[in-house]
Amino acid sequence: MRVVLKIGGSLIQDEKGNIRVERLAEYAKVILKLRKENTEVLCIIVGGGKTARKYIEAARKLKAVESLCDEIGIRAAQLNAQIMIGALNKEAYPTIPETLQEVAKAAATGKIVLVGGLQPGQSTNAVAALIAERLNVDILINATDVEGVYTKDPKKDPGAKKLSKITVNELQEIINETGFFAGKYKLFDPVALKILERSKIPTWIINGEDPKNVLRIIAGEKIGTLIVY
Amino acid sequence: MRVVLKIGGSLIQDEKGNIRVERLAEYAKVILKLRKENTEVLCIIVGGGKTARKYIEAARKLKAVESLCDEIGIRAAQLNAQIMIGALNKEAYPTIPETLQEVAKAAATGKIVLVGGLQPGQSTNAVAALIAERLNVDILINATDVEGVYTKDPKKDPGAKKLSKITVNELQEIINETGFFAGKYKLFDPVALKILERSKIPTWIINGEDPKNVLRIIAGEKIGTLIVY
Amino acid sequence: MRVVLKIGGSLIQDEKGNIRVERLAEYAKVILKLRKENTEVLCIIVGGGKTARKYIEAARKLKAVESLCDEIGIRAAQLNAQIMIGALNKEAYPTIPETLQEVAKAAATGKIVLVGGLQPGQSTNAVAALIAERLNVDILINATDVEGVYTKDPKKDPGAKKLSKITVNELQEIINETGFFAGKYKLFDPVALKILERSKIPTWIINGEDPKNVLRIIAGEKIGTLIVY
Amino acid sequence: MRVVLKIGGSLIQDEKGNIRVERLAEYAKVILKLRKENTEVLCIIVGGGKTARKYIEAARKLKAVESLCDEIGIRAAQLNAQIMIGALNKEAYPTIPETLQEVAKAAATGKIVLVGGLQPGQSTNAVAALIAERLNVDILINATDVEGVYTKDPKKDPGAKKLSKITVNELQEIINETGFFAGKYKLFDPVALKILERSKIPTWIINGEDPKNVLRIIAGEKIGTLIVY
Amino acid sequence: MRVVLKIGGSLIQDEKGNIRVERLAEYAKVILKLRKENTEVLCIIVGGGKTARKYIEAARKLKAVESLCDEIGIRAAQLNAQIMIGALNKEAYPTIPETLQEVAKAAATGKIVLVGGLQPGQSTNAVAALIAERLNVDILINATDVEGVYTKDPKKDPGAKKLSKITVNELQEIINETGFFAGKYKLFDPVALKILERSKIPTWIINGEDPKNVLRIIAGEKIGTLIVY
Amino acid sequence: MRVVLKIGGSLIQDEKGNIRVERLAEYAKVILKLRKENTEVLCIIVGGGKTARKYIEAARKLKAVESLCDEIGIRAAQLNAQIMIGALNKEAYPTIPETLQEVAKAAATGKIVLVGGLQPGQSTNAVAALIAERLNVDILINATDVEGVYTKDPKKDPGAKKLSKITVNELQEIINETGFFAGKYKLFDPVALKILERSKIPTWIINGEDPKNVLRIIAGEKIGTLIVY
Repeated sequence: MRVVLKIGGSLIQDEKGNIRVERLAEYAKVILKLRKENTEVLCIIVGGGKTARKYIEAARKLKAVESLCDEIGIRAAQLNAQIMIGALNKEAYPTIPETLQEVAKAAATGKIVLVGGLQPGQSTNAVAALIAERLNVDILINATDVEGVYTKDPKKDPGAKKLSKITVNELQEIINETGFFAGKYKLFDPVALKILERSKIPTWIINGEDPKNVLRIIAGEKIGTLIVY
Repeated sequence: MRVVLKIGGSLIQDEKGNIRVERLAEYAKVILKLRKENTEVLCIIVGGGKTARKYIEAARKLKAVESLCDEIGIRAAQLNAQIMIGALNKEAYPTIPETLQEVAKAAATGKIVLVGGLQPGQSTNAVAALIAERLNVDILINATDVEGVYTKDPKKDPGAKKLSKITVNELQEIINETGFFAGKYKLFDPVALKILERSKIPTWIINGEDPKNVLRIIAGEKIGTLIVY
Repeated sequence: MRVVLKIGGSLIQDEKGNIRVERLAEYAKVILKLRKENTEVLCIIVGGGKTARKYIEAARKLKAVESLCDEIGIRAAQLNAQIMIGALNKEAYPTIPETLQEVAKAAATGKIVLVGGLQPGQSTNAVAALIAERLNVDILINATDVEGVYTKDPKKDPGAKKLSKITVNELQEIINETGFFAGKYKLFDPVALKILERSKIPTWIINGEDPKNVLRIIAGEKIGTLIVY
Repeated sequence: MRVVLKIGGSLIQDEKGNIRVERLAEYAKVILKLRKENTEVLCIIVGGGKTARKYIEAARKLKAVESLCDEIGIRAAQLNAQIMIGALNKEAYPTIPETLQEVAKAAATGKIVLVGGLQPGQSTNAVAALIAERLNVDILINATDVEGVYTKDPKKDPGAKKLSKITVNELQEIINETGFFAGKYKLFDPVALKILERSKIPTWIINGEDPKNVLRIIAGEKIGTLIVY
Repeated sequence: MRVVLKIGGSLIQDEKGNIRVERLAEYAKVILKLRKENTEVLCIIVGGGKTARKYIEAARKLKAVESLCDEIGIRAAQLNAQIMIGALNKEAYPTIPETLQEVAKAAATGKIVLVGGLQPGQSTNAVAALIAERLNVDILINATDVEGVYTKDPKKDPGAKKLSKITVNELQEIINETGFFAGKYKLFDPVALKILERSKIPTWIINGEDPKNVLRIIAGEKIGTLIVY
Repeated sequence: MRVVLKIGGSLIQDEKGNIRVERLAEYAKVILKLRKENTEVLCIIVGGGKTARKYIEAARKLKAVESLCDEIGIRAAQLNAQIMIGALNKEAYPTIPETLQEVAKAAATGKIVLVGGLQPGQSTNAVAALIAERLNVDILINATDVEGVYTKDPKKDPGAKKLSKITVNELQEIINETGFFAGKYKLFDPVALKILERSKIPTWIINGEDPKNVLRIIAGEKIGTLIVY
């Protein structure tokens, strides 16, 4: 099985910006285990987390144009990606690609490619969808800090129910209704949804606070939410 | 004044894919005239037109993944951009950048930069908005094959009225209602709108069948539709 | 066996510029079959065909310098190469190299490298010869729209005889006499011949209208014309 | 006058990693003022500060090899450089070069080039010296968080005297004696000293907590310490 | 006036491979003088000389493929180009481009671009012609170790007469007859001639042993041989 | 076992600058033999030798800045590296990387990577140490023209004794005392020593005049000097 994995920035850094070293170490272990068992994790996209937000905030105060702020967010995500390269050592592709074409070239070597955002104007979720599509993988795993997609915002509404399956259209509706994804690039933006839809990539949204959940998905367990077409 | 200009692919090629050489020659004349009069046309983004559609259709039949089809569309647009380089001769930047950063570097030389799409997953309109934002220009001109934005689809509804001004929200609503922009990347997609909104770039949608309309906009004439914030 | 394959642009597009999708699909099948049987097709060079001619003609009308026209021809050939990447999917190198060094680097990954011309001033036949030499392959196959090399122009002279073998010198003489190769970059230009001669690469000129002819050559059948040294 | 400026990471970030936005804004003002008065600040090298240290520490815990940790430090410094690009806006070169050759190419455009470390194994001070040498500038200004070079460690020894001039040899001796430079890449490492010596670049070590000190040096005031040859 | 200058390798190195430092210094002086007087020397192409021949010979003994030997010749020529960069200092473009597109980009900065061959399979004379064509210059000066083009080989035949003008066809005939150009890439190869012909670039072949001859050509003196169309 | 090999320039060229073809051929044989026996020689760093010194001397006379002279030295070393590529043929990575990141990417393909210096300000010994560290190899072999490290300068002092083992600190002391390493970048400079120390890479200094000594080290023979930690 060929897999692309997205790891949200909040899973990698806490609110103070400290790096969650132990979780990263466990992610490395999980990925290397999968690799040995012939599940190819072709590419891991990581978010920019607290570092991104802090630097973007400073850049805005200095009146940087918005697309430069996007670049700053990408650079911050690349810092997170680079420490994953350190953890994966020889199995990781040694540098971080910055265009979709470079990702494809890097993946052609058979190493695990780490990516931290590509171009301004694209969320890391859209990037993950594009990469999954370009590399023609069997599955995209989106590791977040929630259990999956809910009918309503679970933090506000105790009646919110986690869904085990959802279509892109339903997902779009929930986004519109609940404002659940109101943050700039949260979970899925319209571009990411469009790409998922056109390529029909089986996509799991799971809780990535426990890296072993990635193993569970690969093993066929029904945790999180599956986007269906 | 610093300007970014988007030229739709259909202005450059007819429905059979033939190149409208005379119109391109006139665009070159218009741009070189502006340059002499100290209106800097920093970057021109051109669409892929009929060539793009023909090659993408073939690629789909050959079961190419969608993001590769996007790349094919970009390459086709670059062919259109390259002949504009030929027409602008020494005033044009001699190669075609492929990332936003390369566009910024190219523009730093003071030459006119030709672009034909950047990365998969971005419409040429989103690209034009991103470039306008990154280069911090005073105005973005979007040359299309219609007179501007209408209340309804002017080809279907005789009561459609051309608007002289419109907000991003109103534009979004018209898109939702009329399906006017139902094509994949027509006029403005959500990403392009978001970028325009966040950076508040004065944007004119004009009829580019007459290249002199660009001169008219620069001279302050009220043709086409202005997006306001 | 290690092979470089040149596919003429006229085999890929018809005179109206339409892409011969079925033939490309069959080429993909042939190449993937060879790959499974351990015949490495390291690199495929494709011509620019009708698209190249159409864009170059437009560029000339716009008074583009000739080496820029060469670049346009290369870009058009790259469009043809890109749809072959789509057809070959994961077995193809995902991007198109633009220098001989990049071709060599791409080939080092073991993927099939698609190329559509390298630098201005070099015909795609010279490029094919250079790549065959640089990659040190066992055989170069030149797929054209004729059956091989003839003593005279077969379209004009009914007494023309197809040759099963020919030396570079004889080939040069036929070119000089018959003007058979009078087109700009037809079959072989002097640079291509010089490279073949210095490296003595066994080169077959075959009819590529039937992609299976490539299989026949690999299987040892004596079709087309072999250049000997 | 042609100038290269090094800004230490601790001037840009406080101990908690917060970005000193106001100081950066003032640096931008100072540099743009100099530019208007025909003092060319060709290149600004910024340190990685607290962000670098935090990420390197995490990378070490994950057992990343040391040269990868160097790369992480460079990436962190590039984040600091990128917000300076935002502050300098159109006067800044839009991207961050990563080799000495790219720095030289970027500087050839006449824009202010921001750099955050080049290659592993080189301190940002060595990088600043190399760039000053390569660009053949008249003066290198090293903005730190001390007043200049002292005879002894001023934080430990109240009898420490600030020197107004010093030779490279004397500087080397002080380093050896006081362990003043015991940190990894503090002030000047042997490579930086060697480059200064061979090229005899007039180098000022000044307190950069007040960005106006840069103006004072350019105006000829004798603050800080001058390295003489 | 816009100029491209080709300097033969034998003008830069003697037969033992020693570098003719004084001549290079004088070339630098001549070029900087022209630059001050508004004659733009956009690009200088230098040959590989003795170093190229020595390394190619060694590579052949080690059974390197021929196109790799071409690359070695290019690298040797780049060494000669790099010392010219040193001599021209800030007026030179700081790095050496390796494709025609990079040459065009470098020239767009207004610095003097040094080149030492581009791709395998192209002589430095073909490269000079291509660059002259791409940059659309007014004149190409080819500095050699002879006084110009002769009716016969002047080293063998005392009746050989130097020609003040010659057409490309006449030049081709002399090459064919006298074997004057029998060396691999001497004076002009067929590719170089074809490019000159198609673009009709006024080309002077002069004796470059005295760098001041370049000044004489620019001043309108009739030395050497002019290729006419 | 994973190995990085440094070959000093003087082993490749004699004092007149002639290339020692036979020794290079034997090095190629040794390396290909190791490869077959599963000792991965990941990267070979070669020095610039006489060619470097000759060109640097000329550049200095032309008043080139010192970091440009470093670049010239790197280019000369790359010429030596390129002929090794010719000798190793298909087993060699086809181009020469110029940054540490590119070295890592090249090595990820499994081919033998040839390097001739990376950036100005770094000796080839520091480069070899950095590459050995980055690629995480088991052993670094430094092939020189002496038998190993001596207590004193063996060319001056008959009582000099060759050491079979040495620590970095002892090596540093010998350098300081004997001036044995007084040349600019001889054997080990401080940067190289610091990198060896921080990464504790087992490093052998051996006589490389006999390429078979590399085989002996791999086979476990105790020749030369081992740096221990």
